[in-house]
Amino acid sequence: MKVCIIGLGQIGGSLALALRKNKKFVYGISRNKDTIDYAVSKGIISDGSSDINLKNFDKENFDIIFLAVHLGLYEHYIKKLKGFGGILSDVGSVKRVFYRLSKQNGFRFVGCHPIAGTQMSGIESADSNLFLDKYCIISGWSDENSKDVISNLWKEVGAKISFMSPKNHDKFVSAISHLPHIIAFSIVNSTYSIRKNNSGIFGGSFKDIIRVAESPAEMWADIFLYNSDFVVKQTEKQLAEMKKLIHMIKNKQRNKILKYILKTKQKI
Amino acid sequence: MKVCIIGLGQIGGSLALALRKNKKFVYGISRNKDTIDYAVSKGIISDGSSDINLKNFDKENFDIIFLAVHLGLYEHYIKKLKGFGGILSDVGSVKRVFYRLSKQNGFRFVGCHPIAGTQMSGIESADSNLFLDKYCIISGWSDENSKDVISNLWKEVGAKISFMSPKNHDKFVSAISHLPHIIAFSIVNSTYSIRKNNSGIFGGSFKDIIRVAESPAEMWADIFLYNSDFVVKQTEKQLAEMKKLIHMIKNKQRNKILKYILKTKQKI
Repeated sequence: MKVCIIGLGQIGGSLALALRKNKKFVYGISRNKDTIDYAVSKGIISDGSSDINLKNFDKENFDIIFLAVHLGLYEHYIKKLKGFGGILSDVGSVKRVFYRLSKQNGFRFVGCHPIAGTQMSGIESADSNLFLDKYCIISGWSDENSKDVISNLWKEVGAKISFMSPKNHDKFVSAISHLPHIIAFSIVNSTYSIRKNNSGIFGGSFKDIIRVAESPAEMWADIFLYNSDFVVKQTEKQLAEMKKLIHMIKNKQRNKILKYILKTKQKI
Repeated sequence: MKVCIIGLGQIGGSLALALRKNKKFVYGISRNKDTIDYAVSKGIISDGSSDINLKNFDKENFDIIFLAVHLGLYEHYIKKLKGFGGILSDVGSVKRVFYRLSKQNGFRFVGCHPIAGTQMSGIESADSNLFLDKYCIISGWSDENSKDVISNLWKEVGAKISFMSPKNHDKFVSAISHLPHIIAFSIVNSTYSIRKNNSGIFGGSFKDIIRVAESPAEMWADIFLYNSDFVVKQTEKQLAEMKKLIHMIKNKQRNKILKYILKTKQKI
């Protein structure tokens, strides 16, 4: 089985490395020639190219092509790959956009979202164990056979599989991933004037909350935009909850606050 | 030097254990007889009592008495300890209340807030290394000599010292600790309806953010109430930042979002 991965960031690089460990042929494409050289020298990919316009690229050499680039680049690559006979897959954080574009352009396809990855980025953060015991959400596919092939690939690299419709996926991750990033970016700003003179002193709770504010800006701008409806809705729910709690605090309603916190503990 | 610690939760218990390691005599008081028995049996305290009304308690046996109870219990103990000739200290998360009560009642006193502790609670989570390389904020004191005695005690158990006025302290922790807890409690609620059918799948960012929602409810109700002015103000700043970001997302302002995230990275 020959696999091509377009985009060699943390997720693309880690998938390449994990597949290589399982003796797959993995071809990598990155806009950055240094990334390709590094990835080949470290054995992360079997071979690769920085030709992002896919000019001398024979797509029919591959059984599977993964998009592991920012969501904003999907249209570019899907145009270039049109007519591909194998399975088109991806690892993006929003699934409706991949589903729509793949379906419109007549691909065999399987949308994927491994719930893995850290605030780090780039090929240097590739880790063959990144997906071990993590969920990979399979979300939107053209046919059962392709779905099985891609599901098995993720199982091979250690992931657990979950299935969701693209819409349910996008709603779900707006809550468990996109909202925490909205909070991380904004709390860095809202607390800055107070923190700047005491920069060494962080509570554990604060350190944890801002960890993901180190995440790549371009990637997150795209995620917020391609999932804007659910991100906005989920953030508005969060604003309403915070206002509710703050209202109780303002009015010194100790029993209500206590009940609110205790109720929380049953919902974690 | 003989030390009494009233309240043997995670912070009181850890302080007791760390002082015992340094060969101090530590007397513990807890409302729970089992806690005293456990703490004596594990060598966390030298001796102790569950007499929370301090009826057979001779305060003048001690050089230092620490309050390590919920803020709502401060008035009770300060009344009982009135006239104490040694240094009254505490480990509470809000410093204006300790400062006001200690000053009003004529104590020699030093307010303290070790920026340590986890979501765990109770004597079983006592850890003699809890304060190692963590900051202890010394905030509000009656005299320089007492301040030095207490500062040295914290240094002995491995903490780094920082000084702030009670007001500055309370403002500072509203940003780096109390706001993250407001967010943790409220995000558990705002995301619950979406999570409940997919409970096994959490992003790392979500896991990190909700960790502290496990914290003790009574303790946090008190913290929010005794620091309500700064907590409300800081949460309102956070709400404004989130609204700003959401406005850009709603209006698909990619460049503005990108700038916002990039600006964040310089402020972490």
